[in-house]
Amino acid sequence: MNIRPALDSDRDVVWKIFQATIAPGDAFVYDPNTPREEAMAYWFAKGTRTYVAELATGRVRPTGGQESKVVGSYILRQNRPGLGDHVSNAGFMVDPAARGLGIGRAMGEHALAEARRLGYRAMQFNFVISTNESAVHLWQRLGFKIVGTLPGAFRHARKGLVDAYVMFRSLENEA
Amino acid sequence: MNIRPALDSDRDVVWKIFQATIAPGDAFVYDPNTPREEAMAYWFAKGTRTYVAELATGRVRPTGGQESKVVGSYILRQNRPGLGDHVSNAGFMVDPAARGLGIGRAMGEHALAEARRLGYRAMQFNFVISTNESAVHLWQRLGFKIVGTLPGAFRHARKGLVDAYVMFRSLENEA
Repeated sequence: MNIRPALDSDRDVVWKIFQATIAPGDAFVYDPNTPREEAMAYWFAKGTRTYVAELATGRVRPTGGQESKVVGSYILRQNRPGLGDHVSNAGFMVDPAARGLGIGRAMGEHALAEARRLGYRAMQFNFVISTNESAVHLWQRLGFKIVGTLPGAFRHARKGLVDAYVMFRSLENEA
Repeated sequence: MNIRPALDSDRDVVWKIFQATIAPGDAFVYDPNTPREEAMAYWFAKGTRTYVAELATGRVRPTGGQESKVVGSYILRQNRPGLGDHVSNAGFMVDPAARGLGIGRAMGEHALAEARRLGYRAMQFNFVISTNESAVHLWQRLGFKIVGTLPGAFRHARKGLVDAYVMFRSLENEA
């Protein structure tokens, strides 16, 4: 797996992953009907760093070299301006067809390393859906703690109003 | 006291109040050196409703009618897009020269009524500085609960890193 900054040429596949991620209405705050323009304005916003994770397909390109496919993307940015800009924020999406391969975990570890490299002192997630247990557990394994619970803050497509969590992790030691 | 939607002609005084609010670096996430353009782009953003509180000065205008002065401003907006847009968010500033007159409380009550009128189901504050006790207590008196604590998320000008609170209040009953 390779994780690198996103290029303009990645936008089509990133949008496909974004669409697939929001379609079930169970894990991401964006509405399933969010238009591409709005979604990509958010994912590639000014001040936001956008990365993609790619996997080798096992095929060789006609022009030579390994063929690879983008299977996930994440964003990294400051969570607050000014006197709160020492805390970073990140968001993650994995292609549903590539789940279970450790891509989310690899992007999470990459994001923590990038945030530390950029001088951030902590990372905060503002809106982790409480019913998305695999995400909650992944972030806990990576050292995040639930520091807040937002009652009924997410309208889950099947479960109705469910809680969202605020999760937080210091970057100042390796604990 | 009168609270009404802000007009373009209120921008000068709103910016003065904004500047005075951020100057001490102890209560608001924006840096004391934030330029007017950036501050007002935030306070008067698209999708944000901006209000002002005005007090009668006791003088009569040369053209007739009571003279009044803007002494506070607040903003109201959705806290999250899409499947989280049933939760509102608000931010408040009071002219330091007009503190202790109940303007913050009046704007808070006005914001709760406006949010309910607009169909929001709850109100969330994402970043209440823990050392700003008068604000924390005011919001608690208005029915908000601390639902999250962000460790060291605010760089206080005199106290260094201090916690920020996430505060939340349902709008679905009068409790």
